[in-house]
Amino acid sequence: MKIAIIGVGLIGGSIAITLKEKKFASKVIGIDKDEQNIKKALSLGLIDEGKSLEEAITEADIFILAVPVDAICKILPSLLDQLSPKQVVMDMGSTKEKLLSLVENHEKRGRLVACHPMAGTEYSGPEAAVPNLFSGKTMIYCDATNSDEDAFDTAEAVVDQLEMKTVFMNAKEHDVHTAYVSHISHITSFALALTVLEKEKSQGRIFELASSGFESTVRLAKSSADMWVPIFRQNRKNVMDVLEEHIHQLQNMQHLLETEDYQSFYKLIKKSNKIKRILK
Amino acid sequence: MKIAIIGVGLIGGSIAITLKEKKFASKVIGIDKDEQNIKKALSLGLIDEGKSLEEAITEADIFILAVPVDAICKILPSLLDQLSPKQVVMDMGSTKEKLLSLVENHEKRGRLVACHPMAGTEYSGPEAAVPNLFSGKTMIYCDATNSDEDAFDTAEAVVDQLEMKTVFMNAKEHDVHTAYVSHISHITSFALALTVLEKEKSQGRIFELASSGFESTVRLAKSSADMWVPIFRQNRKNVMDVLEEHIHQLQNMQHLLETEDYQSFYKLIKKSNKIKRILK
Repeated sequence: MKIAIIGVGLIGGSIAITLKEKKFASKVIGIDKDEQNIKKALSLGLIDEGKSLEEAITEADIFILAVPVDAICKILPSLLDQLSPKQVVMDMGSTKEKLLSLVENHEKRGRLVACHPMAGTEYSGPEAAVPNLFSGKTMIYCDATNSDEDAFDTAEAVVDQLEMKTVFMNAKEHDVHTAYVSHISHITSFALALTVLEKEKSQGRIFELASSGFESTVRLAKSSADMWVPIFRQNRKNVMDVLEEHIHQLQNMQHLLETEDYQSFYKLIKKSNKIKRILK
Repeated sequence: MKIAIIGVGLIGGSIAITLKEKKFASKVIGIDKDEQNIKKALSLGLIDEGKSLEEAITEADIFILAVPVDAICKILPSLLDQLSPKQVVMDMGSTKEKLLSLVENHEKRGRLVACHPMAGTEYSGPEAAVPNLFSGKTMIYCDATNSDEDAFDTAEAVVDQLEMKTVFMNAKEHDVHTAYVSHISHITSFALALTVLEKEKSQGRIFELASSGFESTVRLAKSSADMWVPIFRQNRKNVMDVLEEHIHQLQNMQHLLETEDYQSFYKLIKKSNKIKRILK
């Protein structure tokens, strides 16, 4: 199969590594508006050649869209326009409702399989691509019944190569859930980094003390603004709902400290410890 | 040297492992109000025998206090009362100002070396003890000039065995800095766990999607209430200051989403990315 990867960064590059390694891809074509990314991806061996989308359109069997979600929205409709009946598009977008409503009535909607891999790191660009990024992680298929059967089978073959578990969801449900288990984590990390960086200005030595707990809660603050602003924009309503709840939880803790109600604080921590049930 | 470890949990147990392994300790005596902890520590080989503090008081050369900070405050004054001129106490408390003011005028204050290892995990109890927990991490010495020279030398020999870097701070400075690089991380994790657990009640499938980013920001929510409530209590003022700033940062992001000011949101993320300078 010839695979065109649109956006040769962390996600696109990591998919390329596995599909090449397993010889699922006879050829990987890289497409990226940033010429530097193509050069790096070539020198890292992630892709076999760099082309424009126009050049790749007749050549590839599968198009994998791994660019920020605003760019996916721009590219997807015209990409579908140009597809032949056997070609397949998989998008890797982190938000789905807006994107899928955009192509809801497109005559070639069936050629699209909407995917969201629950895997990643806080790094971006071709150098961030790693082998086995997806192995054992979850791939969400969104509104899968709107995909043609053969297109879905093709996508499933790719996801099989990536050794992922799969979950089916509708787009609306997906956007609510990811706001809770991914988007809010990034918001809190960005905010925590800002809080501490602000303090550091007056207290220089602060980071000598940073321990693994701090690193763990703040590492997502290294994430790319180019990727995350479009996610927050497209999932604005859900993100705002979760953020409001989260601020409410923090204000509750603030109130318990103010009133020195340590017994209630103790109970709250015990309640939050239930997360052990989920995180092994 | 004979070492008495008061509190054979994550920290006390991990210290015991290294001091025994390196044969720095000829004997490790475990002291714990929870009889089960002593049994577990014995069966795990963390300690050589379990005793009461009264029994150990004449036997040990070094006493390592690794219990929650409220318990340290209770034990420390009477422990100092009973010390002979060559014995040394090291406390491992996560807050220092209240603790050290409590024994400020104690005639044996010099026998205490106040330490805080910036190392740990979200687990607790003797089973959580691991080798090399401290290697390469930072040990903070607080108000070290108030310790007798020979007591400090003894403590330094222990910290050497643990292969830690060292930093010197006064207690006030310590409590401000740890509020920023440790205590607030725990607050945000507890709050994030509560936010998501609350949502899960109505949306059961939410955790199928949890990815490594979510795990990373929420793992500290597994931490022990017995340890953390006393920390928040003793460092209340500093924790409240940081929490207020952190809520302010989140409210600012909330405002930018409300007004759809994505340009400013982009700039904020870019600013928070500066954390890369600190976290490698």
